[in-house]
Amino acid sequence: MTDISTNYAARRAALIDALSDNDCDGFLTVDPTHVGWLTGFHGSNAGLIVAPSGEALLSTDGRYTVQAGKQAPDVELLTARNTGVALVGQARKLDISRLGVESEFLTMAAYQELEDARPQALELVSTTGVVSKLREIKSDTELVALRHVADIAVRAFEDLLHDGIVVAGRKEREVAAELEYRMRMHGADRPSFDTIVASGPNSAKPHHGAEDRVIEAGDLVTIDFGAFAGGYNSDMTRTLFAGETATSPSENNPNSTSSDLAGAIVAGVEFADEKAREIYNVVLEAQLAGVKAAVPGADVVAVDAACRDIIENAGYGEHFVHSTGHGIGIEVHEAPFAARTGKGKLAAGMTLTIEPGIYVPGFGGVRIEDTLIITDTEPEIITQLPKPRA
Amino acid sequence: MTDISTNYAARRAALIDALSDNDCDGFLTVDPTHVGWLTGFHGSNAGLIVAPSGEALLSTDGRYTVQAGKQAPDVELLTARNTGVALVGQARKLDISRLGVESEFLTMAAYQELEDARPQALELVSTTGVVSKLREIKSDTELVALRHVADIAVRAFEDLLHDGIVVAGRKEREVAAELEYRMRMHGADRPSFDTIVASGPNSAKPHHGAEDRVIEAGDLVTIDFGAFAGGYNSDMTRTLFAGETATSPSENNPNSTSSDLAGAIVAGVEFADEKAREIYNVVLEAQLAGVKAAVPGADVVAVDAACRDIIENAGYGEHFVHSTGHGIGIEVHEAPFAARTGKGKLAAGMTLTIEPGIYVPGFGGVRIEDTLIITDTEPEIITQLPKPRA
Repeated sequence: MTDISTNYAARRAALIDALSDNDCDGFLTVDPTHVGWLTGFHGSNAGLIVAPSGEALLSTDGRYTVQAGKQAPDVELLTARNTGVALVGQARKLDISRLGVESEFLTMAAYQELEDARPQALELVSTTGVVSKLREIKSDTELVALRHVADIAVRAFEDLLHDGIVVAGRKEREVAAELEYRMRMHGADRPSFDTIVASGPNSAKPHHGAEDRVIEAGDLVTIDFGAFAGGYNSDMTRTLFAGETATSPSENNPNSTSSDLAGAIVAGVEFADEKAREIYNVVLEAQLAGVKAAVPGADVVAVDAACRDIIENAGYGEHFVHSTGHGIGIEVHEAPFAARTGKGKLAAGMTLTIEPGIYVPGFGGVRIEDTLIITDTEPEIITQLPKPRA
Repeated sequence: MTDISTNYAARRAALIDALSDNDCDGFLTVDPTHVGWLTGFHGSNAGLIVAPSGEALLSTDGRYTVQAGKQAPDVELLTARNTGVALVGQARKLDISRLGVESEFLTMAAYQELEDARPQALELVSTTGVVSKLREIKSDTELVALRHVADIAVRAFEDLLHDGIVVAGRKEREVAAELEYRMRMHGADRPSFDTIVASGPNSAKPHHGAEDRVIEAGDLVTIDFGAFAGGYNSDMTRTLFAGETATSPSENNPNSTSSDLAGAIVAGVEFADEKAREIYNVVLEAQLAGVKAAVPGADVVAVDAACRDIIENAGYGEHFVHSTGHGIGIEVHEAPFAARTGKGKLAAGMTLTIEPGIYVPGFGGVRIEDTLIITDTEPEIITQLPKPRA
């Protein structure tokens, strides 16, 4: 397997290899994320054209020229406000006659501008998912970045438990603020997505945010969070049983052990309804089964089924209302997708979240999620936090 | 002036009024932000079709049906995963034959799906900026929301000064984390954008984020930040002279007065280069002139010139590398735009930032920004924080 990460030219070479399958002989992207992945230049206005010869032309506006020169020294730079139009004007010089464009990112208005600007000898070819496909298998450099952001999130959550924040009397919004603050201090540029702190009946809503509800002892509290840094995202979820008071694992020992943290997660189980405990343990069992199923060659539908079967057998099938997991990288949600309607098989170097859940409207819910790196043997769990039984 | 905000049906009526100018007799949006503005439903998957009769059909998937029913009780609901395709199938029943679609949001791929799904008697008409135009004049309800998010940001910044955070020895990243935490605690759902804390030479980069540089006494520190809550954004910037130690305005008086806060902003001016002081005062003068120029009927180019002339006359014209300001609402940057290439005139009910800056590469920079509401008389500044002379 070629490492297509440490070397941007190699990533562009992989793109060139994919062109003939997509019936084109050149490729244009004006998606800043894709330009970043293909060149190393990260700016809000960016375009890139790649030719079969290996030649590539990067474009951005005057605000970013110095930065682009530093971040992407191996590609020529064309300064322009409308990068797409400027690059289309250069396509023929690069011997491109059928230029692939990204139909899933390009707006109609932007496409029309390109159509109006293109020379007659150049045809625009609509493509879909070309770069996304290349991004499925992560390089070693990317895996380092992914482990780093997962670790930021883990350490922030450990601090949260250590500091006794998730207890009765605190608002969901405060818990989110405290967790995001700790991720920031550990090196996150921002959360990967709006932090979810869903307590009590709110935990039955998979898409709850973090509101003004005050947490009560024995509440299920689902916390779904991630850190973004260096261009990569993390994603993980733990559901806790909120304790009555801040019986922080730090009180006797500032260097909390794993079992201290596990204790903090289920601190409030004695106050909880027996049904909450049952749901929690079913989701945990499903999550462990999903992790076990995530091996190279496994069909994504089978990984989803590994979780879903356990939840269905326990009688909660109708309450597992979403799919099992997704890849993660420069986007929070990217291929592969472990779902009943998913397609494809896992391969070493892919990432995948395993995040089954049970949501009982009006009562509460549980979700437990880790991010995995698929390896040749068993998956590497990069979100290493305790998942105690309740 | 009709208030098109307290009443979603009235907003849709305003949209219908705009159809004939855009050569269509119906309108489809699949932009969740626009669907939210037109119906009150806020979900990540949403579509809306509006017919001349006033009839409207909202579409979202199964995850959101309960929420949609509550948030948008006055429109019929069609449950579908691909909302655009589902709604196009209903257009003829609503007597639409020329359906406007949003070329600035719709991707080529999504447009192709609509083209493939449309009945033969229905034509898709490419439109641009139809809803954005309606959103330029804010309703009273929207102005309340905008004042609220501006106030969250202001109070968080006051706390930051009060707590003596922006001083020598602190990292940019820490200052950003502390400010975002305080915005969260005052009620923000998230920052409106990545908080900028640009200190010393970094302040010369208008697009700097917040990194690991440690602030030094006398540094210029530009802090550009905003709070998002209830669907609306805020945006403001202050540049400080960092003091040597945490001579917080709180030390003698926990209820800091405006002059205490002003003192904290220029605490480190005695350590600064005379040139930093000069630049700061030029930007301040330009900013005050920009605010003064923001009256109804003023051309946006003239508002830009009001700032730019002062900076040019002081000999720093080449270092004011961006435009003067932008409207703000459900998006951080929206019409009107006060720029040399801007178009249009200000009117009461519009919002506008005034944010001139001077950036001297290798040395440092200053930006000072407020958000205004244009009124019939002088503008209302909704980001009320001191702007002392240095």
